[in-house]
Amino acid sequence: LGSFDPESAFDEAVSKLVAADEASASSARARHDRLTKPAGSLGRLEDAGVRLAAIAGRCPPPVPEPAAVAVFAGDHGVLKQGVSPWPAEVTAQMVGNFLAGGAAVNVLARHVGAHVVVVDVGVASDLPEAPGLISAKIRAGTADLSTEPAMSLTEARRALDVGARVAADLVAEGARCLLTGDMGIGNTTPAAAIIAAFTGRRADQVTGRGTGIDDERLAHKTDVIESALARNASEGSDDPLSVLASLGGLEIAALAGFVVGAAASRVPVLLDGVIAMAGALAASRLAPLSVGYMVAGHRSSEPGATAALEHLGLEPLVDLQLRLGEGTGACLALPILQGAAKVLIEMATFDDAGVSADHE
Amino acid sequence: LGSFDPESAFDEAVSKLVAADEASASSARARHDRLTKPAGSLGRLEDAGVRLAAIAGRCPPPVPEPAAVAVFAGDHGVLKQGVSPWPAEVTAQMVGNFLAGGAAVNVLARHVGAHVVVVDVGVASDLPEAPGLISAKIRAGTADLSTEPAMSLTEARRALDVGARVAADLVAEGARCLLTGDMGIGNTTPAAAIIAAFTGRRADQVTGRGTGIDDERLAHKTDVIESALARNASEGSDDPLSVLASLGGLEIAALAGFVVGAAASRVPVLLDGVIAMAGALAASRLAPLSVGYMVAGHRSSEPGATAALEHLGLEPLVDLQLRLGEGTGACLALPILQGAAKVLIEMATFDDAGVSADHE
Repeated sequence: LGSFDPESAFDEAVSKLVAADEASASSARARHDRLTKPAGSLGRLEDAGVRLAAIAGRCPPPVPEPAAVAVFAGDHGVLKQGVSPWPAEVTAQMVGNFLAGGAAVNVLARHVGAHVVVVDVGVASDLPEAPGLISAKIRAGTADLSTEPAMSLTEARRALDVGARVAADLVAEGARCLLTGDMGIGNTTPAAAIIAAFTGRRADQVTGRGTGIDDERLAHKTDVIESALARNASEGSDDPLSVLASLGGLEIAALAGFVVGAAASRVPVLLDGVIAMAGALAASRLAPLSVGYMVAGHRSSEPGATAALEHLGLEPLVDLQLRLGEGTGACLALPILQGAAKVLIEMATFDDAGVSADHE
Repeated sequence: LGSFDPESAFDEAVSKLVAADEASASSARARHDRLTKPAGSLGRLEDAGVRLAAIAGRCPPPVPEPAAVAVFAGDHGVLKQGVSPWPAEVTAQMVGNFLAGGAAVNVLARHVGAHVVVVDVGVASDLPEAPGLISAKIRAGTADLSTEPAMSLTEARRALDVGARVAADLVAEGARCLLTGDMGIGNTTPAAAIIAAFTGRRADQVTGRGTGIDDERLAHKTDVIESALARNASEGSDDPLSVLASLGGLEIAALAGFVVGAAASRVPVLLDGVIAMAGALAASRLAPLSVGYMVAGHRSSEPGATAALEHLGLEPLVDLQLRLGEGTGACLALPILQGAAKVLIEMATFDDAGVSADHE
């Protein structure tokens, strides 16, 4: 990506944001009804096509390709509370795996023709430079959100800038669909906390098993998230930037910026799982027009994901009980989203095909 | 496909059927647990990979490609009972649309790299020869199943042969994944009747709105299906071939043969919607080992589809409230199924990647 300077990229993105185009959405709905199929018979695939038309501001919409996945990586001070059985070192090891092409997101991104970039926005250890790695470390992991703010307001703002800049750069290089990805041992804890804070849910309604913890650790994780929410509430600000900084996740803040950056470039942003949902909720508070550019890739089995989807008014394209993250669910949804555009572009109308549209 | 001779193809397929391989399934489960991800975190994508291993009899399984969709077309005497608002002529018109490449199944098959063939197994009108059309008409539409058997036992057997032969020929030409498709105005009526007969459900539990009928016509359609079920029951045979002939659908019988033919060739057969479900249920009765080779592509919004999926023990890959048929849901599921194989083939193990598999 050449020289990487995120300076004020988030504010620039916000200033460029326009509402998704309702007239193009209406044109897409009308076009669907002229295509050679019973009205509405392609179900939610039709809705996805309508959304793509609104995002692009034209009907039919362009096929959302080429696509790029940005995997934002960070570590989490809250890990010392024992919220995950995995050690923090695995974050950096998995970054190595992404760069070598061996992780699930690499396999699925290759399969669907999406390019992968990895963004170090807060990995605890130093990472050597490597092709495909964007070095944008803001700090070496967050502070423990259960006892103190995960990061400062300045750090959160810088993470938003990183995400927005990555989105703008990927679009400048030709990407026409952006997919969210994440890596960070322990990151379902800040994600659940952020989702609780932004949706008004209780900790026990949004806390899940992450990588697969047992009942005892789940109860403990829920307590840790409750403590974080209580601390955040006692600090008194419900300003979205404050909440994001307080409950943290450098990769979550970067994802919020990435979502807004995609929206500012008028390209669809295909959301992955619960970590992406936390970033998307933050984006929706910081820049409400960005919601119109979001497409939910899949329904993570984490309960917070469903809470966030409801809050954002999004229905995911795929529901396969995935709980891996990395961008895997977004990759699996990409061919469906592209198919939705092709239906509007390539299908014959009743008139074209000489098929009788008249029925009783 | 060259000279088309379906003679005894179904019996040949049944004689070649072997059980899907449980040892390869176990190997796939064990391999998933060594890949660089928390155990089970790819959810039902892992299950799909396990099934592909069992089908292929090896682990990792080959990627199910190239793929071919066979769209079996037929007309239905029951249409005169007013079960659908669309005229029978639309079946032939849509065959023309398929051959011209303008229908939804064409668009989605092209998108996912699947080849489309159309098989006239019972269209009411004469169809001109055309590239991509297999002429295998058994009769010009079925009889009215609400008052008499839809077809004779001999006709049903010939339709099974057609389906099995199409499957064998597509595999001989190189296909390694077969997708079911269908076209037939009125065909949700025989599909619901067959599903009711094979699952023991009542007509009102499996009858849906098809192309989108109103409440009044739905009630009438349910009555028509009840009449068909009562007539079939009064004829006293629950032999699966008799039920298939009695409640009919030439394309449904051909689909049953196609499913068994795919299984005999040990390739996965990706099922589309409610019409495919009726054929798959018939296949499961005629040749129970075929079930191990079925993969459910999507959950049609027709209630009979869910009844059939439960009965077959299948969980679909996609649930987008589609109710078009043609093979569209199977096409949308194909990249997911292929991704499931690639995860097993391409992902790094913890050992390969130097990622710590040790956790508390």
